[in-house]
Amino acid sequence: MTTNSGRHFLQIPGPTNVPDRILRAMDRPTIDHRSEDFAELTKEILGKLPKIFQTNNPVIIYPASGTGAWEAALVNTLSPGDTVLCCETGHFAVLWRRMAERLDLNVINLETDWRRGADPSAIADRLAQDKAGKIKAVCIVHNETSTGVTSRIGALREAIDSVDHPALFMVDTISSLASIDYRMDAWGVDVTIAGSQKGLMLPPGLSFNAVSEKALAASRTARLPSIYWNWQDILDANQSGFYVYTPATNLLYGLREAVDMLLEEGLQNVFQRHDRHAEATRRAVRAWDLDILCEVPEEYSSSLTAVLLPDGHNADALRRNILSAFDMSLGAGLGKLAGRVFRIGHLGSFNDLMLAGTLSGVEMGLGLSGIPYQSSGVKAAMDYLQETAPRSK
Amino acid sequence: MTTNSGRHFLQIPGPTNVPDRILRAMDRPTIDHRSEDFAELTKEILGKLPKIFQTNNPVIIYPASGTGAWEAALVNTLSPGDTVLCCETGHFAVLWRRMAERLDLNVINLETDWRRGADPSAIADRLAQDKAGKIKAVCIVHNETSTGVTSRIGALREAIDSVDHPALFMVDTISSLASIDYRMDAWGVDVTIAGSQKGLMLPPGLSFNAVSEKALAASRTARLPSIYWNWQDILDANQSGFYVYTPATNLLYGLREAVDMLLEEGLQNVFQRHDRHAEATRRAVRAWDLDILCEVPEEYSSSLTAVLLPDGHNADALRRNILSAFDMSLGAGLGKLAGRVFRIGHLGSFNDLMLAGTLSGVEMGLGLSGIPYQSSGVKAAMDYLQETAPRSK
Amino acid sequence: MTTNSGRHFLQIPGPTNVPDRILRAMDRPTIDHRSEDFAELTKEILGKLPKIFQTNNPVIIYPASGTGAWEAALVNTLSPGDTVLCCETGHFAVLWRRMAERLDLNVINLETDWRRGADPSAIADRLAQDKAGKIKAVCIVHNETSTGVTSRIGALREAIDSVDHPALFMVDTISSLASIDYRMDAWGVDVTIAGSQKGLMLPPGLSFNAVSEKALAASRTARLPSIYWNWQDILDANQSGFYVYTPATNLLYGLREAVDMLLEEGLQNVFQRHDRHAEATRRAVRAWDLDILCEVPEEYSSSLTAVLLPDGHNADALRRNILSAFDMSLGAGLGKLAGRVFRIGHLGSFNDLMLAGTLSGVEMGLGLSGIPYQSSGVKAAMDYLQETAPRSK
Amino acid sequence: MTTNSGRHFLQIPGPTNVPDRILRAMDRPTIDHRSEDFAELTKEILGKLPKIFQTNNPVIIYPASGTGAWEAALVNTLSPGDTVLCCETGHFAVLWRRMAERLDLNVINLETDWRRGADPSAIADRLAQDKAGKIKAVCIVHNETSTGVTSRIGALREAIDSVDHPALFMVDTISSLASIDYRMDAWGVDVTIAGSQKGLMLPPGLSFNAVSEKALAASRTARLPSIYWNWQDILDANQSGFYVYTPATNLLYGLREAVDMLLEEGLQNVFQRHDRHAEATRRAVRAWDLDILCEVPEEYSSSLTAVLLPDGHNADALRRNILSAFDMSLGAGLGKLAGRVFRIGHLGSFNDLMLAGTLSGVEMGLGLSGIPYQSSGVKAAMDYLQETAPRSK
Repeated sequence: MTTNSGRHFLQIPGPTNVPDRILRAMDRPTIDHRSEDFAELTKEILGKLPKIFQTNNPVIIYPASGTGAWEAALVNTLSPGDTVLCCETGHFAVLWRRMAERLDLNVINLETDWRRGADPSAIADRLAQDKAGKIKAVCIVHNETSTGVTSRIGALREAIDSVDHPALFMVDTISSLASIDYRMDAWGVDVTIAGSQKGLMLPPGLSFNAVSEKALAASRTARLPSIYWNWQDILDANQSGFYVYTPATNLLYGLREAVDMLLEEGLQNVFQRHDRHAEATRRAVRAWDLDILCEVPEEYSSSLTAVLLPDGHNADALRRNILSAFDMSLGAGLGKLAGRVFRIGHLGSFNDLMLAGTLSGVEMGLGLSGIPYQSSGVKAAMDYLQETAPRSK
Repeated sequence: MTTNSGRHFLQIPGPTNVPDRILRAMDRPTIDHRSEDFAELTKEILGKLPKIFQTNNPVIIYPASGTGAWEAALVNTLSPGDTVLCCETGHFAVLWRRMAERLDLNVINLETDWRRGADPSAIADRLAQDKAGKIKAVCIVHNETSTGVTSRIGALREAIDSVDHPALFMVDTISSLASIDYRMDAWGVDVTIAGSQKGLMLPPGLSFNAVSEKALAASRTARLPSIYWNWQDILDANQSGFYVYTPATNLLYGLREAVDMLLEEGLQNVFQRHDRHAEATRRAVRAWDLDILCEVPEEYSSSLTAVLLPDGHNADALRRNILSAFDMSLGAGLGKLAGRVFRIGHLGSFNDLMLAGTLSGVEMGLGLSGIPYQSSGVKAAMDYLQETAPRSK
Repeated sequence: MTTNSGRHFLQIPGPTNVPDRILRAMDRPTIDHRSEDFAELTKEILGKLPKIFQTNNPVIIYPASGTGAWEAALVNTLSPGDTVLCCETGHFAVLWRRMAERLDLNVINLETDWRRGADPSAIADRLAQDKAGKIKAVCIVHNETSTGVTSRIGALREAIDSVDHPALFMVDTISSLASIDYRMDAWGVDVTIAGSQKGLMLPPGLSFNAVSEKALAASRTARLPSIYWNWQDILDANQSGFYVYTPATNLLYGLREAVDMLLEEGLQNVFQRHDRHAEATRRAVRAWDLDILCEVPEEYSSSLTAVLLPDGHNADALRRNILSAFDMSLGAGLGKLAGRVFRIGHLGSFNDLMLAGTLSGVEMGLGLSGIPYQSSGVKAAMDYLQETAPRSK
Repeated sequence: MTTNSGRHFLQIPGPTNVPDRILRAMDRPTIDHRSEDFAELTKEILGKLPKIFQTNNPVIIYPASGTGAWEAALVNTLSPGDTVLCCETGHFAVLWRRMAERLDLNVINLETDWRRGADPSAIADRLAQDKAGKIKAVCIVHNETSTGVTSRIGALREAIDSVDHPALFMVDTISSLASIDYRMDAWGVDVTIAGSQKGLMLPPGLSFNAVSEKALAASRTARLPSIYWNWQDILDANQSGFYVYTPATNLLYGLREAVDMLLEEGLQNVFQRHDRHAEATRRAVRAWDLDILCEVPEEYSSSLTAVLLPDGHNADALRRNILSAFDMSLGAGLGKLAGRVFRIGHLGSFNDLMLAGTLSGVEMGLGLSGIPYQSSGVKAAMDYLQETAPRSK
């Protein structure tokens, strides 16, 4: 009954709610991808997009999902049998590692308990052992969408530098870019992987590789073959504002609008907005007396919060009840967390009252599902939001 | 800062949030208004629309605002100098009365304190005095948008019948139609006035007169001149699926979609949804220990709730704070209520989490504005919503 | 078969093809009509809109069709029994005259054969006879949508001035505004009537009165009652950016966009574009050896061309064939021209290739309908379009 | 000047004009790609989509351009060093061949003069020489977008069968699917490659592999590595209505609508419509006395026509003039045809009057560019369109 009216609450950690402004920007006739108008579109996007990555390096846009951008990062830089160092921070780190293995790479995997980020000292230690420089790349997921843990990329960079290891540094920012402070250049990242459907507020269908000089140099000798993902082909075509194959024009319209919206708001404001909503969410979780999956406060994710249910309660049943009664989608527990956690996405085009509605849906869902909770998490979140709200001028 | 992201909360008592499905239905090329395709559109709408009024009478669609539909009701049925009986239930009743006066009608006005609906016995008394049958029409606002009070139209009909008075019964349902149970035929209403931008979930720009046989008969001798509003011209043209002048085609696309959505949900479900959200809202207001403007429980409005602030607090300042901090629009106090009340719209395309977000915005706004409140209204509302939520099958 | 694919050709003389840019501008959430954002929208529109009328007078926007704007012009300025001078240039002039009669005005009607515009000397003659100044208004249709004849408003103004008559000068520009040069101030017009769905490229649903000081002065003593149409109420509310009743917000979004588009193109360029397409159309008609209904070259309409069929051929059958075979809507003959003429709309958002497609549809339709024609009108039109096409820089 | 008004004519051979109905279908909030609603969307699409390929085999949908679908076809079925037989029918065949070479495949290339399709007997001959069965795949472009030549897939199948060769048969239908009769099952094709932005009338961003049992069997031993393109992963996930990675949800909304539109019109009707427009276009080209690039009438493309200019005239200058004067985009000559041909796209959402407008633009452009032509091609096309137009019932 209530599910038939009003707006669905899409509070999975992506795809996120696409703003009308972006949907409308895409709702236009496709243009000739070999025209001057198209070249201007490309140049405008490629001029601004690196700012979102806080980089001066070029950003390559693929008509593909984020998984494609993972594959692109690997096949452009590596050769069969090359060794890469991965850190299993959660489900998506597992998927990326498995991809590397299936691509005939030799993977060294550092495990975690999925409740913390990649450990800088463990990585330094492992790299230090690699006297022969066999490890060609370190692959890290910046924000683990499955756990709500944000690895400290700056500290990881320092760890790599501390042992002077020449490995390429590849970072998946799919659920952090444009939500959580990410500084490609300052942190010396060689390949940044990103997607359109999270902080960029677009529908899925585009993904990205931002690539350093060092990564480009590596690509010249890499022997994992692919034409579709080939960086150099695309960079060459981009020079004149074009692509090597037909680009996803209407998604590019949306991307231009998204980048404009983010720059209008200001990247630092975007990050602070996400931080504030994440903190409000955690206060709600604590008021409920439920466990935040992430155990390291400095690694709390600002784009999503994964919540552990007490033993004996099924998170998927909770999510079903909430969807059925309150028309809200929440993220499921993935991999080994299936049924034990649910994930609240609070990223992208979002604001205080949407968050309050979201947390209300969770709180009522807990009640409906017979999951005991201490006190009103919504009230706790509201107290924080009110206290930190902008005052009228 | 928070105002720049996410979706605006439009919680005035209309215009209401237009669902994407309706916006998209309107986002189409205009067609030839003399074509067969257009005639089919008209016939489909005119076939279904009366169901929303719970009538078998024809409904006339004007490209106009609700004010136009008020004027249409008066000029089609009355002549200069005719007497009408009005009941001042609030600001919109005042505006309609003034219109009648300016149209050279002789208005008898029954006052109220704006905290209750039209009084059936007062109306019966006044009509009983009118032995000569000078009163040609009784004009009532079903749901006073300025006060959140819903007059009991059925009881008013009984009052008129109790004294056997032949006056036409005209009812403004602008903020009740498709939100609050309204039964034109069962309640013997002669002219129903309605608009597009409330329960019908459309943008403003269309208004309606549903007209009884008796009203049509009256229109044959009425001498307040207008061609634009002329019922008979339009009804004649509608026979073949056309209009006497160029209709607002794209709004009609939206109207067709809106009627389909309402009938899909089921009118009784629509009313229950509104009743439930209104009750949740009142529980919030009571938890805050603020006053609901409406003093008669049977006359609580299901489409909006007007809330009185304690003396010394300015409702417009509160609304400004909420708009500025939380990007939500609430309704102002109108007429003699200016500055003293704010109005929460909970009608149209709406659901539990949107309501929770709305009430959160009010609650945090009270806090920000230094208006004392007792306990969390959001919590009170959530308790009720959870308790009455549909259970998973 | 062919009718199921591609884009419908809407070549009636209005409503016209709404550009995507305008449709998208309207495809947005409705906002609070009492908010600051709304006031800014109003002020922006009211600041620019008079330029389209080439006036410094205020323009009043009605949520209504053009017929409403006719009624508004009459009821704001006149009183029952007042005399107005009309000129029957075609079907729409007839409708406006009949409205005046039904509003209890005393109409003096100057007839034409519907193949020419209003005659300045006939009007001067008739006004000269009115020594007592009984004629309160001269009502002229600038561009007769039913005939494709454009009356010379400047010359009519001179005619009125030549006999020094004080009557108000009211001009219907519904199918000329933003298509054909129209200069309200230079031509001393007192009330300009306009609508949204022709040169303004919007869907129907808005209409306009641009009003001179003299018209406003007349409105203070006029006694044809209406509240909805009342100029002064609206002008007062407009001062602060608001309306006296709920405005058609989403159509206003479209209006802002339309005005911007027209000003970007430049009004003179807009007029030249329409002139050029009209000339190309007439060349096609002449090549076919069919008759242009308008017999006075200086009065050819730039927004539509009405074409007379030879005796024995039915224009409605032709239009049906064209609609069925080529998915194009053309205008019907109206009133006494029914079945004898068809009308080609070439106004609004339009270009050379759309015109070529349009004329191709007519030419093939003539063939399909067995209506003899001399030579390819499309070729004649193309020759002209090519010759006058902008050259590459 | 004329370029600023009306609708752009996008008459390149793809991306094609996206119908409003499809644009609007995509203009909706993205939904949870792990929800039941999403699974229903997937199942609906996967149930209907094979009909468009005239196959009972599964169709795999990639968030990717057509180039990606080429790569997918190769990497799923082949191993480094495998031999494939290609036929250079034009620019896109060259690109696909080069991709194969860069993927370390051993390519046997059959050349043509780019004015005819793949030669069945040449292919039979070459396969007959391959006694050892080294050739693992025959790769053919069904409709060469660069030349307007359609290879005869049925005849090629017979050629392969005539020598009983076991090679996989891979066909690129990017610019033929849903425009030109293509029968995957009847013609025994093993992998069909397709894209969204041509006959499917969608924006670019999706591409397809329809795969036979034999191709799937081959995929189990293929050793060109890729995870993104992996068929089996996707087919497994599709079983329950999901994808292995985040799908391009909004493009899928459009795909569902596109498939519905094609099935509503009827595939055979779609093909006949394209055939008819192609024939009309060729009649125009012949009337102009210009050369159609394709020299084999049975291989004329129904989705585009490539036109050769006389020596001394530059096709790119012509295209620029047409774009500048008439706001129409035409396809450029590609590869060795650069500057010598222009290509008229007449595929996708298209109709007679759009074609007439298109040909008018070409004809006027020839005139503007000083390229001599014999007689009106538009007239010749109209004669044919009229003669073959559907008659009113």
